[in-house]
Amino acid sequence: MAPTKKGILERLNAGEVVIGDGGFVFALEKRGYVKAGPWTPEAAAEHPEAVRQLHREFLRAGANVMQTFTFYASDDKLENRGNKLTFTGAQINEAACDLAREVANEGDALVAGGVSQTPSYLSCKSETEVKATFKKQLDVFIKKNVDFLIAEYFEHVEEAVWAVEVLKETGKPVAASLCIGPEGDMHGVSPGECAVRLVKAGAQIVGVNCHFDPLTCVKAVKMMKEAVEKAGLKAHYMVQPLAYHTPDCSCQGFIDLPEFPFGLEPRILTRWDMHKYAREAYNAGIRFIGGCCGFEPYHIRAVAEELAPERGFLPAASEKHGNWGAGLEMHTKPWVRARARRDYWENLKPASGRPLCASLSVPDGWGVTRGHADLLQQKEATTKDQLKQLFDRSKTH
Amino acid sequence: MAPTKKGILERLNAGEVVIGDGGFVFALEKRGYVKAGPWTPEAAAEHPEAVRQLHREFLRAGANVMQTFTFYASDDKLENRGNKLTFTGAQINEAACDLAREVANEGDALVAGGVSQTPSYLSCKSETEVKATFKKQLDVFIKKNVDFLIAEYFEHVEEAVWAVEVLKETGKPVAASLCIGPEGDMHGVSPGECAVRLVKAGAQIVGVNCHFDPLTCVKAVKMMKEAVEKAGLKAHYMVQPLAYHTPDCSCQGFIDLPEFPFGLEPRILTRWDMHKYAREAYNAGIRFIGGCCGFEPYHIRAVAEELAPERGFLPAASEKHGNWGAGLEMHTKPWVRARARRDYWENLKPASGRPLCASLSVPDGWGVTRGHADLLQQKEATTKDQLKQLFDRSKTH
Amino acid sequence: MAPTKKGILERLNAGEVVIGDGGFVFALEKRGYVKAGPWTPEAAAEHPEAVRQLHREFLRAGANVMQTFTFYASDDKLENRGNKLTFTGAQINEAACDLAREVANEGDALVAGGVSQTPSYLSCKSETEVKATFKKQLDVFIKKNVDFLIAEYFEHVEEAVWAVEVLKETGKPVAASLCIGPEGDMHGVSPGECAVRLVKAGAQIVGVNCHFDPLTCVKAVKMMKEAVEKAGLKAHYMVQPLAYHTPDCSCQGFIDLPEFPFGLEPRILTRWDMHKYAREAYNAGIRFIGGCCGFEPYHIRAVAEELAPERGFLPAASEKHGNWGAGLEMHTKPWVRARARRDYWENLKPASGRPLCASLSVPDGWGVTRGHADLLQQKEATTKDQLKQLFDRSKTH
Amino acid sequence: MAPTKKGILERLNAGEVVIGDGGFVFALEKRGYVKAGPWTPEAAAEHPEAVRQLHREFLRAGANVMQTFTFYASDDKLENRGNKLTFTGAQINEAACDLAREVANEGDALVAGGVSQTPSYLSCKSETEVKATFKKQLDVFIKKNVDFLIAEYFEHVEEAVWAVEVLKETGKPVAASLCIGPEGDMHGVSPGECAVRLVKAGAQIVGVNCHFDPLTCVKAVKMMKEAVEKAGLKAHYMVQPLAYHTPDCSCQGFIDLPEFPFGLEPRILTRWDMHKYAREAYNAGIRFIGGCCGFEPYHIRAVAEELAPERGFLPAASEKHGNWGAGLEMHTKPWVRARARRDYWENLKPASGRPLCASLSVPDGWGVTRGHADLLQQKEATTKDQLKQLFDRSKTH
Repeated sequence: MAPTKKGILERLNAGEVVIGDGGFVFALEKRGYVKAGPWTPEAAAEHPEAVRQLHREFLRAGANVMQTFTFYASDDKLENRGNKLTFTGAQINEAACDLAREVANEGDALVAGGVSQTPSYLSCKSETEVKATFKKQLDVFIKKNVDFLIAEYFEHVEEAVWAVEVLKETGKPVAASLCIGPEGDMHGVSPGECAVRLVKAGAQIVGVNCHFDPLTCVKAVKMMKEAVEKAGLKAHYMVQPLAYHTPDCSCQGFIDLPEFPFGLEPRILTRWDMHKYAREAYNAGIRFIGGCCGFEPYHIRAVAEELAPERGFLPAASEKHGNWGAGLEMHTKPWVRARARRDYWENLKPASGRPLCASLSVPDGWGVTRGHADLLQQKEATTKDQLKQLFDRSKTH
Repeated sequence: MAPTKKGILERLNAGEVVIGDGGFVFALEKRGYVKAGPWTPEAAAEHPEAVRQLHREFLRAGANVMQTFTFYASDDKLENRGNKLTFTGAQINEAACDLAREVANEGDALVAGGVSQTPSYLSCKSETEVKATFKKQLDVFIKKNVDFLIAEYFEHVEEAVWAVEVLKETGKPVAASLCIGPEGDMHGVSPGECAVRLVKAGAQIVGVNCHFDPLTCVKAVKMMKEAVEKAGLKAHYMVQPLAYHTPDCSCQGFIDLPEFPFGLEPRILTRWDMHKYAREAYNAGIRFIGGCCGFEPYHIRAVAEELAPERGFLPAASEKHGNWGAGLEMHTKPWVRARARRDYWENLKPASGRPLCASLSVPDGWGVTRGHADLLQQKEATTKDQLKQLFDRSKTH
Repeated sequence: MAPTKKGILERLNAGEVVIGDGGFVFALEKRGYVKAGPWTPEAAAEHPEAVRQLHREFLRAGANVMQTFTFYASDDKLENRGNKLTFTGAQINEAACDLAREVANEGDALVAGGVSQTPSYLSCKSETEVKATFKKQLDVFIKKNVDFLIAEYFEHVEEAVWAVEVLKETGKPVAASLCIGPEGDMHGVSPGECAVRLVKAGAQIVGVNCHFDPLTCVKAVKMMKEAVEKAGLKAHYMVQPLAYHTPDCSCQGFIDLPEFPFGLEPRILTRWDMHKYAREAYNAGIRFIGGCCGFEPYHIRAVAEELAPERGFLPAASEKHGNWGAGLEMHTKPWVRARARRDYWENLKPASGRPLCASLSVPDGWGVTRGHADLLQQKEATTKDQLKQLFDRSKTH
Repeated sequence: MAPTKKGILERLNAGEVVIGDGGFVFALEKRGYVKAGPWTPEAAAEHPEAVRQLHREFLRAGANVMQTFTFYASDDKLENRGNKLTFTGAQINEAACDLAREVANEGDALVAGGVSQTPSYLSCKSETEVKATFKKQLDVFIKKNVDFLIAEYFEHVEEAVWAVEVLKETGKPVAASLCIGPEGDMHGVSPGECAVRLVKAGAQIVGVNCHFDPLTCVKAVKMMKEAVEKAGLKAHYMVQPLAYHTPDCSCQGFIDLPEFPFGLEPRILTRWDMHKYAREAYNAGIRFIGGCCGFEPYHIRAVAEELAPERGFLPAASEKHGNWGAGLEMHTKPWVRARARRDYWENLKPASGRPLCASLSVPDGWGVTRGHADLLQQKEATTKDQLKQLFDRSKTH
């Protein structure tokens, strides 16, 4: 961190809005640098220009946080993805830290290193083993001196608490973010109870990320905030949702939707949906507001534009964006110029152009969790026989 | 062009598939480098790394053509967009040519320079005046020695013919592409008749781009091909459609949709829609197959993957993409692994997650064209009074 | 006909609006008196009170025509429906004529007897054989002295012409109505050409009924009128469409929709849709305006209410219906009272409450017609083997 | 009641399924005999043949209960509806009782007399005054000796309890049915708590009717049953839902939907939806299973057909209905014959044919209740000024 930059807690304590970045794996998958399925971040070493460019776009869009595009999980995850790599995990993670720092230095952004849920936990390994996995991941973050740490994308609060306990030992600020909705974690622990446990474990910032759409995530964080306050505790709040509408999700989130991950397009939020999200999040008392899978730079820019009055400035990328469509005043077609106004976009109910498609899907709802045989991780790609078994089973759902 | 590269006509004459790139203005608008409304390409000079990166992504996705990200239109358009610029038009256009060439040289791609419909024509200027505008635009393409020329995005075949006549004088191969659908140009000239006129004017490649979704565009090009063949003429065919579903468009295309340009998200095609498009286009005898607004690199990759058997190779970016979702075989959730198969994705009817939105919209359908007072271009941004007038008018539609 | 009543041609020649009734088989199926599949009218003899009541409701709703609820088709059809009957065809048909006359006499309505397309024609019998079938059906209509005759529900104009030729011999006014849309009959004869042939064969009234929604049917009748006038002929026009929205139908109409006949509910037109239909039909110059399958009494009332200014009076049932929802002024809930106005209902886009259903279906599109082996009629119910064969075939569509 | 008929409690105590009838006001409005807005039952005296016919259709469809088509409410309601009547309330109510008895005697059905929520309660009158209203309504039911009584369509459990207390004094069996969903009554009293209070007040049968779709109503009754059992009480359960899909309703039910009451068509349940409803209700332990607004005779028949195995017989009207579409085996078109099977209809997701309409609506949600000034009843029709006020208010929602 540049000596003149304020840290994450200084900002939040001062009541500032901190804007997060968007999800890298989904955005880089569409750009051709990440493989859906393994979702690994080797691009940080293989194609640094692509990763740097995406960081820069989020920075220009208003982000104050550059999350390192690192292997979230441990060696075990790295091994079991079946993806031939020409770089070691260490090389990739170091390259990712350098890229995040390089772009963070181009503006007013902090670098955050993250850990995430582990295959070890789902496979029922012990607390000691799981914690050892997290510890190992911290090496590169310490070496590269990230500004703060995030334990994110946890479906089980128990594992998230273990992660926070490990992260706290570094002395850096710790944020903890579960990928849950208002129904709570995979064992049915409510968002409020989850938040209380995380704060007690030492997290200074708590919230949710991924798995659900923005308004659903804001609702879950509100439940967290209420419970933390009721317990007489103090914390800051964060939210980094999907950029997909997911009203039809069950407790496991968008992974269960039949459209995941290659048919989600009709669900993508517009920039105007993002304005509403940013306002709701702000009104709920959340001050670390970012995005996860599906967020493109223009989504983050919309968050920054909605909160420009509170922050006191517009992001750099707004030089290429008129407020509420004002740029259309210069469109060549007069009827498009007539759309250069807030109420037009705020009230638009966009059509899908897909009259053969329904509005909602029925999620798969397999509902398995920690310890279920189906979730034991394997190093090999799924075999034909295994796929057939899964397919047969999916038909009976 | 590198000495060893085959030119556009050599390729098409040999029966090769030539894959185009996607639309730059829409993609770069979302990345924060182009302003919707004026839609000008100053990023080529202002933020060359962003433009270079997008070229590179399309190249990796399989594109054989790098279209220069230049001012399509003339000085008059540049003037009337109300966008303060720190670069001259010449600087921007030269930078754009250099970027396209730089990335084209990284692979097997050609550089194409383009001209497009002019405000002059819509404002009823003479053939001489309009042709003078096109001529001026060619200077930079000649100086930078692009590989071929495209007259694209014309709503009126008359103006497109004028453009082709000017482009032919350079001696370079000339493609001509109208932004029309099966109903024909804005004066009701059928696609077939349009194509015959363009071929007679000297275009070696004819087709359509923008304004309609892929299957609609393929249908229009089929009508062109039938008419050209019936007239005893010869040509190659190109198609570069939108990546948005537009079954509800009238003859003016997606500009008339209420969702244009900031609410189109639910209409975005999936990669599987693109497979179908590529196959339909190929079966229709079209060999120059690309994209326009809405196309992201993964859409072009899907085209290249569908046509890999015909081309004999996969694009570079397919190293990060399993065929028909095969990468999901390595997903951690077993029910997602069960989606690693072609028939799953081919038959999926993706939901929008928007139960309050309809499937189709009613297009604005102002239906004005050349010579209409509303289309006279002005240098200034639309005034409040003018906007009010347009708004009142839009309510009576 | 009562001596003081004007005949159908007198009314139409005087420029009066004649309102038809709705479809009896669909309405009585829902009331429990007609079996879907065979669709036979034995209720006229078995449950006369139910048939009389439905006649009366259409009369109260404004209908000027009571169509006899008779066996449309001939003995062959009667035989092959597999429906055990305790009444002879003659008994049923005579009872039906009496019921229609009884209710017609309660108001200003005429009785119409109808013939329809025959299994004989589809099974490729000769003109002589088919005509003999029609002749036999006329016996009861002559005996009971209906006011005029309708040859309706023909998919092939050739057979309809034969029917008109037979009906003309009775000396009664003859109307001819095909169940086709703008694409024409099953052999591709355009609506215009069909109408010209029917008028030349002697029909004084021509039009379409069933198979398509109101606006589609009006469009087809407009095409008929244009062609008849262009041919220098004179005729009156009739339209009796479905009360179901069918934008997704192919040329065979709603029979091909996957929802036929037991899942059509979401497609039912509202009374406000009927206002629009009545106005469009009237504006197109059609003066015999009625309904077919799906029409309930309130649908016919809406037609009569829309055309009350032209007719000079409201139907009897309007004593129980406020104009454009005016009755809601007396609702107990104030926000429902706020809906007592025309623009509310005219602009409402009613939701389906079915977020898992799409807007449009893909019709089966078997596209078989006269002479196809699948259409040869059989007396027996379909066997299990035959069903299996059909089912397998349907899956490949 | 015929001496040989079993009473309602005998049947339920014996574990029999009792099937209710459908809603008369909605069905007769469509037939032209009831005015939407006032919704009064003068047809019982004015047009007895229409009311008798509808009773008969429900009887044929399998109903065991004929609810008298009487003025639910008191003189005050009769007065304030603004509907000029040529019959006294007593005449109408007596005629209605006679019609119900006449048809009940044609089969195995009982006659039920009902009372409903009063304007007096909403206008904050005292318990004594409200109870006096109920008492007065009982006169005709006692005089005509109905078989049992139903206190139905109550939004407030307090008023329903008062009604039960009055009804109990007659010595006849008493059922109590609220028009609430899982969220409880208008004051937020949960369905379970409501049911406990009603049973304690003396109701032998409790449940819900109207306002919500079948599955929502079944859910609410399940909550009632659980609470009654948990409280150590005993009761029978009834459910008489709407025949409209209402997933988008808030606590006030379908009255708040923008489609109420004249645009509900796309929401109408199919017969197959009714099979599912009947099974769910039965599985939930509910044994008095009927319908309310929107139910047509074929909906009740579907309930009776689904429960034919449990009841041991099919209803009379099933002689005109093949099980699960079996009648289609005799259809003339082979592809329609292919639909003569259960899995086809059970899995069909019927399209709306309305691509410009959304799936869900936003309910009005005025959320006013007892004592709110807007709900004070008035004798006069709403004035223009009052309507304007309501309209302005509705726009701000």
